Amino acid sequence: MKLTPEQLKDFDELGYLFLPDCFSDEEVAVLRQEAENIYKTDRKEVWREKSGAPRTAFAAHTYNEAFRLLGAHPRLIEPLEQLFGEPVYMHQYKINAKSAFDGEVWQWHQDYGTWARDDGMPEPRAMNISVFLDEVMPINGPLMLVPRTHKQGVLAAGHDKATTSYPLWTLDQETVTRLVQENGIIAPTGKPGGVLMFHGNLVHGSSGNITPYPRKIVYLTLCAVSNHIRKPTRPEWIAHQDFTPIQAVEDDALLKFARSYKVAAE
Amino acid sequence: MKLTPEQLKDFDELGYLFLPDCFSDEEVAVLRQEAENIYKTDRKEVWREKSGAPRTAFAAHTYNEAFRLLGAHPRLIEPLEQLFGEPVYMHQYKINAKSAFDGEVWQWHQDYGTWARDDGMPEPRAMNISVFLDEVMPINGPLMLVPRTHKQGVLAAGHDKATTSYPLWTLDQETVTRLVQENGIIAPTGKPGGVLMFHGNLVHGSSGNITPYPRKIVYLTLCAVSNHIRKPTRPEWIAHQDFTPIQAVEDDALLKFARSYKVAAE
Repeated sequence: MKLTPEQLKDFDELGYLFLPDCFSDEEVAVLRQEAENIYKTDRKEVWREKSGAPRTAFAAHTYNEAFRLLGAHPRLIEPLEQLFGEPVYMHQYKINAKSAFDGEVWQWHQDYGTWARDDGMPEPRAMNISVFLDEVMPINGPLMLVPRTHKQGVLAAGHDKATTSYPLWTLDQETVTRLVQENGIIAPTGKPGGVLMFHGNLVHGSSGNITPYPRKIVYLTLCAVSNHIRKPTRPEWIAHQDFTPIQAVEDDALLKFARSYKVAAE
Repeated sequence: MKLTPEQLKDFDELGYLFLPDCFSDEEVAVLRQEAENIYKTDRKEVWREKSGAPRTAFAAHTYNEAFRLLGAHPRLIEPLEQLFGEPVYMHQYKINAKSAFDGEVWQWHQDYGTWARDDGMPEPRAMNISVFLDEVMPINGPLMLVPRTHKQGVLAAGHDKATTSYPLWTLDQETVTRLVQENGIIAPTGKPGGVLMFHGNLVHGSSGNITPYPRKIVYLTLCAVSNHIRKPTRPEWIAHQDFTPIQAVEDDALLKFARSYKVAAE
């Protein structure tokens, strides 16, 4: 899948692209089911909120077939190869739960701030692609983006280890207020299967979720191979050190897997 | 101001009524300014979030002229006299801040559950009327209502004293899930000056606010005089014990005050 000239222009200007209906119901159903199965396991890659509800599961592409296929899907890999002009590898892979009733906030931050400070990534030539596994609604903690902030470079940030179970380099309130006054906030919402790509320096965050609607999103962090991290300080399953270029699978690989999965379950 | 037969039917069926543009910009501006001034004071009626940001200010109609006029405003008093068929008194009066960046959640609850358990109010013949002082957006912690749940009676609840600084009788997750599956969630949003009335047994809650947009709402709890509370356990400035019927002021009283206020400030 290639991005159109209009999409490339929008991305350059706003710092994000939203692609509704990127994955079909059949493809998403298997991912959603497998995410729930992973959250039930007691492995080190699964982190929890203070309540015990799942917060995120790392590196699922390394131990789950459905998420392996998603992590090499041409609808995600090819646009990034196009943007970076070279092959990409997987820097990080997360299934964020934003659980019903208990999903906690992600404070305002830039992803590249963490990749630079914690992992020694040279340039913001890496990007998050998020795949909606549940319906993302205005009320269940949608991702909130501050458009155009990807042109601000790396902003000053403090290391927040207290607010949630996930340490994050977060921006101060004065900075966020100024950026939002200038640019507003957008919160793309929509049904499962939508894909949201956003620049590594785009300022974003998300509120807690007290609704009975879970809001699972997969985040692939794809990095240009030449931009691989230089000074890892986090475990390999959080910030990967395998810089092998991803070979995209066939476009129907996940669909075929979903169909065989359904048959196996019957 | 009287409610129309259609409005009365909607209220009976759904348990709430939303009236956009009930107060003008001029009227709201003075209330917003005075709310900020009250939050800056160090009085027992002002409660704060863990961060120190204001959470709510009680009883402002007893010590602030603008909020006194709002608390006797015919656009709020008359519809409730109409619904209850008798005069009303002020049971509680709060200015909830839902502060920018720091506004915390209000867990799912029914207001009458607290009025019955904590104050000995005989029947759910009291109601919250909320007046938006800031723009209420999908992303800054709007009030979320579960329509039609006012016909459920008083549901079992637990006394939550830990989640936030405000003790509240809250519903369990199984109950909320069931009610939302049956009825959905609605979250009225809109500009300052909008008014939302909802039945004392309507299930509702609100998420935290991490945006730079504050979301102040005034809540008047008006109770039918004959339904006055019988067993108060909370301080008088939280659950009032003056059961005198409210005499509505003139419809332009708040507007006149706003204009004199502006002149005084110049």
